[in-house]
Amino acid sequence: MKAAVLHEYDETLSRDEFVRYQDVPTPEISRPDDVIVRIGGAGVCRTDLHIVEGIWRSKVDIALPYIMGHENAGWVEAVGRGVESVKVGDPVICHPLVTSGHCLACRRGDDMHATESRFPGINSNGGYAEYLATGERSLIRLPSTLAPKDVAPYTDAGLTAYRAAKKASRHLLPGQFAVVIGAGGLGHIGIQVLNALCAAEIVVVDRSETALALAKECGAHHTVQGGDDAVERVLELTQGNGAEAVIDFVGEGNAIAQGLAMTRNAGFYYIVGYGGKIDIPTIDMITSEKTIVGNLVGTYPELVELMALADRGLVHLATREYRLSEANQALRDLHHGKVKGRAVLIP
Amino acid sequence: MKAAVLHEYDETLSRDEFVRYQDVPTPEISRPDDVIVRIGGAGVCRTDLHIVEGIWRSKVDIALPYIMGHENAGWVEAVGRGVESVKVGDPVICHPLVTSGHCLACRRGDDMHATESRFPGINSNGGYAEYLATGERSLIRLPSTLAPKDVAPYTDAGLTAYRAAKKASRHLLPGQFAVVIGAGGLGHIGIQVLNALCAAEIVVVDRSETALALAKECGAHHTVQGGDDAVERVLELTQGNGAEAVIDFVGEGNAIAQGLAMTRNAGFYYIVGYGGKIDIPTIDMITSEKTIVGNLVGTYPELVELMALADRGLVHLATREYRLSEANQALRDLHHGKVKGRAVLIP
Amino acid sequence: MKAAVLHEYDETLSRDEFVRYQDVPTPEISRPDDVIVRIGGAGVCRTDLHIVEGIWRSKVDIALPYIMGHENAGWVEAVGRGVESVKVGDPVICHPLVTSGHCLACRRGDDMHATESRFPGINSNGGYAEYLATGERSLIRLPSTLAPKDVAPYTDAGLTAYRAAKKASRHLLPGQFAVVIGAGGLGHIGIQVLNALCAAEIVVVDRSETALALAKECGAHHTVQGGDDAVERVLELTQGNGAEAVIDFVGEGNAIAQGLAMTRNAGFYYIVGYGGKIDIPTIDMITSEKTIVGNLVGTYPELVELMALADRGLVHLATREYRLSEANQALRDLHHGKVKGRAVLIP
Amino acid sequence: MKAAVLHEYDETLSRDEFVRYQDVPTPEISRPDDVIVRIGGAGVCRTDLHIVEGIWRSKVDIALPYIMGHENAGWVEAVGRGVESVKVGDPVICHPLVTSGHCLACRRGDDMHATESRFPGINSNGGYAEYLATGERSLIRLPSTLAPKDVAPYTDAGLTAYRAAKKASRHLLPGQFAVVIGAGGLGHIGIQVLNALCAAEIVVVDRSETALALAKECGAHHTVQGGDDAVERVLELTQGNGAEAVIDFVGEGNAIAQGLAMTRNAGFYYIVGYGGKIDIPTIDMITSEKTIVGNLVGTYPELVELMALADRGLVHLATREYRLSEANQALRDLHHGKVKGRAVLIP
Repeated sequence: MKAAVLHEYDETLSRDEFVRYQDVPTPEISRPDDVIVRIGGAGVCRTDLHIVEGIWRSKVDIALPYIMGHENAGWVEAVGRGVESVKVGDPVICHPLVTSGHCLACRRGDDMHATESRFPGINSNGGYAEYLATGERSLIRLPSTLAPKDVAPYTDAGLTAYRAAKKASRHLLPGQFAVVIGAGGLGHIGIQVLNALCAAEIVVVDRSETALALAKECGAHHTVQGGDDAVERVLELTQGNGAEAVIDFVGEGNAIAQGLAMTRNAGFYYIVGYGGKIDIPTIDMITSEKTIVGNLVGTYPELVELMALADRGLVHLATREYRLSEANQALRDLHHGKVKGRAVLIP
Repeated sequence: MKAAVLHEYDETLSRDEFVRYQDVPTPEISRPDDVIVRIGGAGVCRTDLHIVEGIWRSKVDIALPYIMGHENAGWVEAVGRGVESVKVGDPVICHPLVTSGHCLACRRGDDMHATESRFPGINSNGGYAEYLATGERSLIRLPSTLAPKDVAPYTDAGLTAYRAAKKASRHLLPGQFAVVIGAGGLGHIGIQVLNALCAAEIVVVDRSETALALAKECGAHHTVQGGDDAVERVLELTQGNGAEAVIDFVGEGNAIAQGLAMTRNAGFYYIVGYGGKIDIPTIDMITSEKTIVGNLVGTYPELVELMALADRGLVHLATREYRLSEANQALRDLHHGKVKGRAVLIP
Repeated sequence: MKAAVLHEYDETLSRDEFVRYQDVPTPEISRPDDVIVRIGGAGVCRTDLHIVEGIWRSKVDIALPYIMGHENAGWVEAVGRGVESVKVGDPVICHPLVTSGHCLACRRGDDMHATESRFPGINSNGGYAEYLATGERSLIRLPSTLAPKDVAPYTDAGLTAYRAAKKASRHLLPGQFAVVIGAGGLGHIGIQVLNALCAAEIVVVDRSETALALAKECGAHHTVQGGDDAVERVLELTQGNGAEAVIDFVGEGNAIAQGLAMTRNAGFYYIVGYGGKIDIPTIDMITSEKTIVGNLVGTYPELVELMALADRGLVHLATREYRLSEANQALRDLHHGKVKGRAVLIP
Repeated sequence: MKAAVLHEYDETLSRDEFVRYQDVPTPEISRPDDVIVRIGGAGVCRTDLHIVEGIWRSKVDIALPYIMGHENAGWVEAVGRGVESVKVGDPVICHPLVTSGHCLACRRGDDMHATESRFPGINSNGGYAEYLATGERSLIRLPSTLAPKDVAPYTDAGLTAYRAAKKASRHLLPGQFAVVIGAGGLGHIGIQVLNALCAAEIVVVDRSETALALAKECGAHHTVQGGDDAVERVLELTQGNGAEAVIDFVGEGNAIAQGLAMTRNAGFYYIVGYGGKIDIPTIDMITSEKTIVGNLVGTYPELVELMALADRGLVHLATREYRLSEANQALRDLHHGKVKGRAVLIP
């Protein structure tokens, strides 16, 4: 099959070609619960750029060359003999983790904290390819209203945004505020999820006017231009108190210190983006009684919930399609901030 | 009346006398809900040493000289004309915050996040004295089983430990682990509260063997000598995973980094002690999905709950009594680690 | 002042005149936290008809004659000397309970479970009058966008619907269903609150086509004509499973048995309306693991939350105005099902 | 193999022989995740008597003859080819439900609400036999401290009591009360679980003095002799308010009305036992804002939690052993109230 393969790290993201479009062996069924999915769409994620940069090298155990692509949807192509819940031809979206389901975390519904799991595109071959090897427990059948290429980025970008926004929605009451920092691929989903799941007023902070315009379309009630005075402007909008929830989709630069400063006493700062450092005196955490919440991708049931929102039109994903053979163009465009919404590779 | 008054900061805690035992005007009723309490016991807290050092100068607005002492219990001496729920002579313990009860936080039961409040001993005159001015909403009548001098330190040290341990107990399930870092004045209460409120296995980490012995008496299931290998030893006790909850009563030095490292993925690190800094890359928060929780003193209802535990003998406070005139000795002993449990000033 | 006074019970609701419009003494300030409110609007509630019928006689301790009216809003006319949080002239909405705030339930934020309280219009004089005696702790200042006569019914009808819908929204996930039985004065608020607070699909059951039309306007996703086949039709809409939450605003006749039958296993049946009986074998509760939840009016903070929804236009109350002198007409119209939305008495 | 087989219903439980001890075919592996367990112990449950009476006939789909026994533990005898998490010889306890794990309820951790499941001993052959056919997902490996015959009754009686007591412990605060009605096979576990998971004061109501003595051993703080004045006595113990949680392990006769009357306003009545009816006017549910909670057996993770409590000695199960060939004696003794704790059939 064809695939776009990563052969070398590029710490400065300065090369012309990040991945090589080439022939590779097609994956095959080896275990009873294996499933091969024919890719209909594979999302291109900022994490892929971070992988190219080598940032994830110390976090995961995989040798180059390998195939990136952790946001996948398509059609079931082949199934192992123990597979019961999907059949060949089914349109499916792939939860990003492949688990056996035996550990206690899985039994409690927290698949993403499985003691043993595989994350195709991160620590095994992913979906920048024609076919993907995954497992039965990762698959959700799509309703006829949703095409694989239109929903692929929900599996990671969308699901991560969903999980963080859902956590916030559990405590956000009418009359309270949520700040969203960063209205890009994840943030624009997060805004819509907040609007679907609670009645908080949503303030979006971003340096880009295009992003703020997208935020407005997604239902932001207030927008704030990112910059040195962003904290002050959020405090003005929130009667000087800050917001009960801040979801930081940037997680680097001054977003972190600003995000914590925008968080009201007794409030929650949800960190989703990464690259920077949290650096705060313990006395400030104690006197403010703030909580800092790390956020990973969501669970399988959460992806089902997100698909229900998408199916009912309560969230909409802005995508831009590229051919699999144009993977480098997609990565470059993402790197240079030229993708509105989310890039998706299609066959 | 007599009081032990702070006249000057002492950043190095090197003077012979931190406070001056002297005559001051006795507080009087001025508002309808004012209450004057005759002090039966006033706890001596590490925060008092931090106040003397000047650490709190930038956090609170109070000019010297003033009277420290934020852990108070005694008997109602006089009441304003609107006071209905206590009467002169009642034995009472004082919630540390004095609030009007009108703001939304108070209406939701979160007194400690009141938009307007007074914290006697921190930002107004406290209980290192014969009498204390407080408000009706701060008072809990004591059962006959509990003497003011024996329970005074519950109001802040105990209540803070209670709140953090209670938060942890809400998610700790049988088969899970709680690590307590620091088995001093707060920690030894925290251990007992954990045992009363959940069935987690409790691991206590402290550099002091005396503290670890106290921890064992308080119900710790495992103890770990503090030091460079403390993380490794906690991981050994927890099947390599770390604990679902870590409560850090130290909050400075390497306790913070160690505490975060002892926290299991998807677990909670509760920060109670202060003095140091939290310093962690956002990527580590995200891949681990840990949560960092700041902890303030508990609410009024939580102090009622803690008194119920004390009344039933489920928590016991180790105290050492000093006369009010010996306040400097108490502070010095605390500073030099010579107080087992909690120092209390009595009339 | 003028008031509409109840002098006699009428078990069959067959008299021409339920209440008498007459002169009565104007209430006065007697305690430091008393407040007199000049009524801008007083809601007319089905409970008022039940009071006239004598249904509440055994539940509350009040002798006739007295003044009904437990849904009140207006302007502060006079305040006791201890009142700090409102001032004369402020537009206010009145939480229906008057409490001292001293009991543990109040301190936890559950005002409606106060050990001592007064419920004007139920067990003391209410708002079918020019002036009402209430307490400082009952008052919420209104924003300039909300007129007292337009919001008065939120205090009980709205607040009860809000509380039940909020409870349901805490567990309703995207992809799940909520059934609302009865789209009248409470139900049409409940539908809007559900839509604001969660993303469940909402099915409304009512015998009246007018009510179902109102339900659609309020955001119902599906409507079902009440009748013997209502359960069957709800099961069809919910893949044969029933709904994760059923909110029963009727609570009499076959609504109860139907409501329980519409509830999915492991789901919640919220009972708000009354008049009938719950009658279910314990074995059916156990094998289904259903939960039956009784619902009272909401707390003060919940009324603040509801006002935030109203202020932002997320809930809208259909009202029909009557002069105070026309109170009997309003009660008769309500009794004969002629009020769409909610009747309000204005001065 | 040998088994004790049910051939006929006996509505009055008046026959000498309820089941027949006889030879039957030994179960075999047919699917990849099948597991055959050699029975070490099979609990004898009141539900078995109800099955004999025919009470469950309308609830489950199974034809006689079949083998009862839904509380099973033993050793893995044979495994299907897909089984990874246990191996032949492992000592195991069997969660009572056999599920595929594919439905959304399973994915959320609520195995007991699986859309497709089998309940050996209830709707397929159970453990009154030498061998049992179950599935990989039902098995928990036992620590060496716990013998199969000593823990078998935890799987249903224990797990049901655990689940109800755990639910109650989530909201029971220090200073609050839990009433346990019925201190038999389930109740005596429930008392211990409450003590392990929260600090509520526990009041146990039972007609039998032997049961109340067992309750005291299990940690009850107060006991009340069952009878017409039981409600009054519970109200006396709870300052006239009733208990925040009532767990009713009887569920028939006057236990239900009494249990509801013992429940404090805003409190929770957990129904576990069955046979009777809940019969309460909706107005009483509303004015009291009580909640009635149906309780099924717990989840797989909850059985893991209960095993952790047992392993640490925090719960202890009183058992009485009978040979498999003596199954009728065990059932008769249970029927006549002669079993203290729980009867277990051993090979």
